[in-house]
Amino acid sequence: MGVTNRRVAVRHVTPSVEAGRYPAKTSRGELVVVEADVFADSHDLIRAAVSWRPQGRRRWHEAPMRPLGNDRWRATFVPDDLGRHEFRVTGWIDRFGSWQRDTRKKLDAGVATDVDLAIGAELLAEVHGDATGPDAALLDALRAELLDASRPHAERAAAALTDATADLVARNDGRRFATASDAYPLRVDRERARYSTWYELFPRSTSPEPDRPGTLDDVIARLPYVQAMGFDVLYLPPIHPIGTVHRKGRNNNVQAQPGEPGSPWAIGSADGGHDTVHPELGTLDDVARLVAACQDHGLELALDIAFQCAPDHPWVREHPDWFKHRPDGSIQYAENPPKKYQDIYPLDFESPDADGLWQALRGVFEHWIAQGVRIFRVDNPHTKAFAFWEWCLNGLLDEHPDLILLSESFTRPKVMQELARIGFNQSYTYFAWKNEKWELEEYYAELFLTEVRDYFRPNSWPNTPDILTEFLQYGGRGAFVQKLVLAATLTANYGIYGPPFELMLHEARPGAEEYLDNEKYEVKHWLLDQPHSLAEMIRLVNRIRHENPALQQDRGFALHHVDNDRMFAFSKRDPRSDNTVLVVVNLDPHWTQAATTWLDLPALGIDDPDATFEVHDRLGDARYVWRGPRNYVELDPHVSPAHVFVVKART
Amino acid sequence: MGVTNRRVAVRHVTPSVEAGRYPAKTSRGELVVVEADVFADSHDLIRAAVSWRPQGRRRWHEAPMRPLGNDRWRATFVPDDLGRHEFRVTGWIDRFGSWQRDTRKKLDAGVATDVDLAIGAELLAEVHGDATGPDAALLDALRAELLDASRPHAERAAAALTDATADLVARNDGRRFATASDAYPLRVDRERARYSTWYELFPRSTSPEPDRPGTLDDVIARLPYVQAMGFDVLYLPPIHPIGTVHRKGRNNNVQAQPGEPGSPWAIGSADGGHDTVHPELGTLDDVARLVAACQDHGLELALDIAFQCAPDHPWVREHPDWFKHRPDGSIQYAENPPKKYQDIYPLDFESPDADGLWQALRGVFEHWIAQGVRIFRVDNPHTKAFAFWEWCLNGLLDEHPDLILLSESFTRPKVMQELARIGFNQSYTYFAWKNEKWELEEYYAELFLTEVRDYFRPNSWPNTPDILTEFLQYGGRGAFVQKLVLAATLTANYGIYGPPFELMLHEARPGAEEYLDNEKYEVKHWLLDQPHSLAEMIRLVNRIRHENPALQQDRGFALHHVDNDRMFAFSKRDPRSDNTVLVVVNLDPHWTQAATTWLDLPALGIDDPDATFEVHDRLGDARYVWRGPRNYVELDPHVSPAHVFVVKART
Repeated sequence: MGVTNRRVAVRHVTPSVEAGRYPAKTSRGELVVVEADVFADSHDLIRAAVSWRPQGRRRWHEAPMRPLGNDRWRATFVPDDLGRHEFRVTGWIDRFGSWQRDTRKKLDAGVATDVDLAIGAELLAEVHGDATGPDAALLDALRAELLDASRPHAERAAAALTDATADLVARNDGRRFATASDAYPLRVDRERARYSTWYELFPRSTSPEPDRPGTLDDVIARLPYVQAMGFDVLYLPPIHPIGTVHRKGRNNNVQAQPGEPGSPWAIGSADGGHDTVHPELGTLDDVARLVAACQDHGLELALDIAFQCAPDHPWVREHPDWFKHRPDGSIQYAENPPKKYQDIYPLDFESPDADGLWQALRGVFEHWIAQGVRIFRVDNPHTKAFAFWEWCLNGLLDEHPDLILLSESFTRPKVMQELARIGFNQSYTYFAWKNEKWELEEYYAELFLTEVRDYFRPNSWPNTPDILTEFLQYGGRGAFVQKLVLAATLTANYGIYGPPFELMLHEARPGAEEYLDNEKYEVKHWLLDQPHSLAEMIRLVNRIRHENPALQQDRGFALHHVDNDRMFAFSKRDPRSDNTVLVVVNLDPHWTQAATTWLDLPALGIDDPDATFEVHDRLGDARYVWRGPRNYVELDPHVSPAHVFVVKART
Repeated sequence: MGVTNRRVAVRHVTPSVEAGRYPAKTSRGELVVVEADVFADSHDLIRAAVSWRPQGRRRWHEAPMRPLGNDRWRATFVPDDLGRHEFRVTGWIDRFGSWQRDTRKKLDAGVATDVDLAIGAELLAEVHGDATGPDAALLDALRAELLDASRPHAERAAAALTDATADLVARNDGRRFATASDAYPLRVDRERARYSTWYELFPRSTSPEPDRPGTLDDVIARLPYVQAMGFDVLYLPPIHPIGTVHRKGRNNNVQAQPGEPGSPWAIGSADGGHDTVHPELGTLDDVARLVAACQDHGLELALDIAFQCAPDHPWVREHPDWFKHRPDGSIQYAENPPKKYQDIYPLDFESPDADGLWQALRGVFEHWIAQGVRIFRVDNPHTKAFAFWEWCLNGLLDEHPDLILLSESFTRPKVMQELARIGFNQSYTYFAWKNEKWELEEYYAELFLTEVRDYFRPNSWPNTPDILTEFLQYGGRGAFVQKLVLAATLTANYGIYGPPFELMLHEARPGAEEYLDNEKYEVKHWLLDQPHSLAEMIRLVNRIRHENPALQQDRGFALHHVDNDRMFAFSKRDPRSDNTVLVVVNLDPHWTQAATTWLDLPALGIDDPDATFEVHDRLGDARYVWRGPRNYVELDPHVSPAHVFVVKART
């Protein structure tokens, strides 16, 4: 560092992902909270501002920062545009403000002198050089007053010492020797990246006729059912031709019987690969019609991207270089030794033709984007190279900033976080397995109260075709409702795999956390209209989400103490709409639990520790008047395992 | 990021200060602990190493990293050289190790094939390309064995699956597609930067004759006294000519009486400025003799650098540009409105001749460095520009890597941390004011258990000429001994201002936390040989420090629970010497306190929660046999306010 007159330091800017190497994530219309340590040597007052702009634009927007104490400063802004942005923090010495402060003290102590006022006039003259129009005249008048030796000091200084003058000077201040931080990247996704409600179904199981598999047209017919429950994303497992070589049979048998349909994730056959629609499901045109029909039903189509190949995938023949070869010339199938998955060939990310492979994979996304698809659920991204994702996803997002890319990775935490950091804008989580209070508290504190929140957007799923937890297997209806409420309120993005979820299917293949007679390997004909269906409950929960902005974002999260280890309480608050939701859950799916809360009242927007306030349970529709932090709660899981309270301060 | 075959990610490397913009600090012979998240996609095993070198050298040293769980890896090394170093973390796929793991599983399950062994042979062939000498022959033999179709699989693979083979391969592995982190800077200071014991005295108060002020020669005569107490740094307040204009009198009176000596921090007069010795103290030659005499007494001289000027400092005349001018042409004196400090002119770091000013200030250091001085205590660095310090200190340290620069800044935490970050290698702290248990626990957790420890080296002072806390004013001998023990054991660097400390001077100027008849403004003649002197206690405490490596560094710090709010317990551990010191302090200087500990046994190097171990109180020389975490402690401050236990596990 060379000689400089910049005296202000700007440190620890947040949000910042890996010191600004990766963009923090936000969404259009979401409040971005920027903080930084801003301070100078000595005792001068300082000012700070955050400025931001969409990348590539010339003009910066700016918002003044406010001091929070301990040299921490904060400003907020709301981006209007999609895509990559940058922001930076600037700090500078507030010379005139420092003079105001010191001169007030001197006047109070009766020690102000002509020289002190002349210093103020000098500072105004300096600012005047930057001012134009009426401000310049105002500055002139203030200077003349300060220098008017005919009047007492206090009178001469009065106008110069007002807040209005501070504002006048601030808006004309040339900010001499200001320090600007590096520019930090920020990616603005669309609203649905922040708040979305997913429903997964297998198209081949949507046929109304038991003697034929479903088609994309049958999916269109199913849309009103999905819409009625309040979902806004319809996600389909891969819709491509399914491999015939080493095809898996029912219940994951290594050899399919003739006529068995195979797993949709074993992609590719003589009928085509990742750019082709399974002939039994329909055609590319049908996909386009489905995209439009979804739109008509307030839904959006999400497709599955699973970068792996069945042995009869066209790429195996056309691009043998994209696969690993064994010394005997055969292609390396997937393994988890000693288990073999001979129906799947992984792609080789150390391929000598990595360039061709990367381009082809990105091409798969582009192909479906051209059909109007903007949401992708990406299968097992952690088994593909990070560098590929970083290149692919950033390229895609720069070109199509309305994309939503959900990482389906259930692996070690740092790998899941890395995938989010390098580009995925939604991520599956460990939610399905977090049943104990301490697990929930620890996990959501990590997701929402650490820097992870700046890049990792959780999407909670109580079940998937691969996941039927013991909790759901044995917990009964109480467990299903509890997991539904938690998924829908903990995170603004959640989804279920239906119809097994709403029909509360709970029988597992023995010894596995997986459905018995898994739909992955067979065609189902679901009977939807059953008295025990949770469809109505799901509709209610999704309506509560729809009505409460606090549940449509993942900020303003707080944990609340409850003196019972089987009860869990948290809140989410959206300060702009003044909407606060407090959720209290009985984690025990079988027995009634009761407890006293010890609420973090400020997190609920309540400052007075003795205030009375109303909590309105939107699940059960009961209203209570509570007072202070300690309140009694009791929940019978057979009635309702949770309160979803809207909190209203009384005025 | 473009197309690459690198699959390993390296993240969150520590120690790292502002993402590697500033060097982390360590010292020669100190254990440097490097950690990083290292992980890859998929399920291959990986390896990682840390490499380091003095900046500018070509050759890297390397140490293998070990996994700690949760994808965190660690390695340690001990630097031999002083000055700026760099280190980086490299991770790569362990192809052969992954093959060993998978092949063992396949052999165990009886499904290994010729192809599996041929893959191993291929991997060995790849490594062979990098190997030379006997290793190449070994690799050939292993390959031949794997491919020997005449023998059963398990036999053929046996040698290839050993750990010895893993080592053989690892040392020849070309580390294809390895990922290297950025290089992170590290500054290696000398040992005394890490572990030092300071004694401050005013040279003019060292005269044995009451009718004349002391000289540097009198300081030489005082060295045996200082050495006997176990100090290794002798720090003198500024030794320069003292300004005569607006000179301060006794007890900070605004006007000195004729004959009053003034404050040594009001630097400069017609006799000279920052490069001159006060004529009454001696000459530059005397300084050189003092430097040598200190060396003869196991001491090292530290000088005070206070960048401010009395009105009659030569710079005021020679370089008016270096000072701020008021509209009436006068020079701006120091102010804290409404208070005026007309005896001090601050330097203007926004000077139009910033370049000349910066060079002159750096020149002051260089001047004293040329006299053999290597330790500087820098007065109020937070009132000078950060950018100046960054430039000045880094330039000095690069040229003189044996410098120790102590930041005398008592201001807001982030400013104090910034000064450490940009170059100071020791820092004053809030130690003097931390009296309550919660304050001590919170503060030392911040200093020792957060990233602050990587750049901020605390130096604890119970008193200074400016600081006589209420705790010392009213706490009696118990308070003095307690603060001495805490300063000496909490931080490896500490100091006292004597003789007032060892003589337990406790009378303050009314309403101030400052000594009555402060030595800053007058010449003292101390009577050292008094029965109540703490000199013997200081000698004991310093001997305990000398005998216990755990107290000579600030790592391995842990807090321990004690069920009494007036008792405080912590430990420091040096794993290399297996030396552990546990300190239990009664924070109440007046009354006996008792408590039960709940020790963090692993922090004491004790793994068995039920182990018996010996604790030897080196202050009182008592030995106790303790067992497990719960043990009784009782301390009467009138006997001893603290136990300083050396902990010895029994085997």
